[in-house]
Amino acid sequence: MPQGIPDVVPADGLTTRQRRNRPLLMVHTGDGKGKSTAAFGLALRGWNQGWSVGVFQFVKSAKWRIGEQTALESLDALHRADATGRTGGPIEWHKMGSGWSWTRRDGAETDHAAEAAEGWAEIKRRLVQGRHRLYVLDEFTYPIAWGWVDIADVVHTLTHRADDQHVVVTGRRAHPDLLAAADLVTEMTKVKHPMDAGQKGQRGIEW
Amino acid sequence: MPQGIPDVVPADGLTTRQRRNRPLLMVHTGDGKGKSTAAFGLALRGWNQGWSVGVFQFVKSAKWRIGEQTALESLDALHRADATGRTGGPIEWHKMGSGWSWTRRDGAETDHAAEAAEGWAEIKRRLVQGRHRLYVLDEFTYPIAWGWVDIADVVHTLTHRADDQHVVVTGRRAHPDLLAAADLVTEMTKVKHPMDAGQKGQRGIEW
Repeated sequence: MPQGIPDVVPADGLTTRQRRNRPLLMVHTGDGKGKSTAAFGLALRGWNQGWSVGVFQFVKSAKWRIGEQTALESLDALHRADATGRTGGPIEWHKMGSGWSWTRRDGAETDHAAEAAEGWAEIKRRLVQGRHRLYVLDEFTYPIAWGWVDIADVVHTLTHRADDQHVVVTGRRAHPDLLAAADLVTEMTKVKHPMDAGQKGQRGIEW
Repeated sequence: MPQGIPDVVPADGLTTRQRRNRPLLMVHTGDGKGKSTAAFGLALRGWNQGWSVGVFQFVKSAKWRIGEQTALESLDALHRADATGRTGGPIEWHKMGSGWSWTRRDGAETDHAAEAAEGWAEIKRRLVQGRHRLYVLDEFTYPIAWGWVDIADVVHTLTHRADDQHVVVTGRRAHPDLLAAADLVTEMTKVKHPMDAGQKGQRGIEW
């Protein structure tokens, strides 16, 4: 519902326009499907607005390439091919697993904790630079849950980030401090899943 | 998680491959965000597989054009521009509100019940033809809830559709018979929303 009416008008001294454009920290959590998929759908909206979008996949295996990566990189290519700059925005897709793209390590990297910490360090650098308008931190709840990334640092960094930078974090078991800091939290709950009835994951649906 | 292990192996006489490729009826419901966004994210995966994707938006106002439409139509254009047919699949985006594209009515159309019924009739025709591999029936729960489309007809049609056609239905208040017929149901639950704190919807996030 695009034209939502707020339940409460806060006495925060901000104009409606300022409040409207306040950047959001969003969390998609829960055991159901759609957490990452909805975050990549948000990237479509950002692209359409001409925003710079950065996707950071905190997954241990980089062998798996999901369909969204190819599709979003195709949209990025459309942006780059249009000299007028009016076709969408740039989209960068980075993933952990064999070293992040900017670290240029070889495929033998297996210290996932160090990799996750390096991913977060890079995101912090970009937040300071104001590099992107939308950051998708996919499955970032796990390195937090495993203690690879310090939750206090995450909350401090995200709540003190420069304006105009939206952040969406996905993954199960989101840390309570992250939920407390978030502006928007959606829980995806599994009501019924075909794997419960013996069906396996399939092409085009799961990846 | 692409490589899911089923909880139960059913005695249905199907091979794993047959079960793997059984087309799904999916429902994204609940009061939270991400129902439609996750469905459009699935369209990215379908596009990447080279599938024909049909999006049908059951919204009353066609004035609003969301970012996903532009982005998915851009991917469709990439598909059409590649003579080899190897770049993604075709994506069609149809919406109610000023007459569906195939009805070619003028903008004065305001009988939403008739329009919704016509949208569903077209989807039925396409399901018989096997026109798409993925159908996104966006906000289709509402015309069902309002009685504009007969739930018994929807359930019969969807459970008897020809193979290889995935269907995802989005919207609040999904009919219990639809949920019973579905293979996968995810409920998006609002845990926290910025409109509760007085913030209005904004560009790139809500549309």
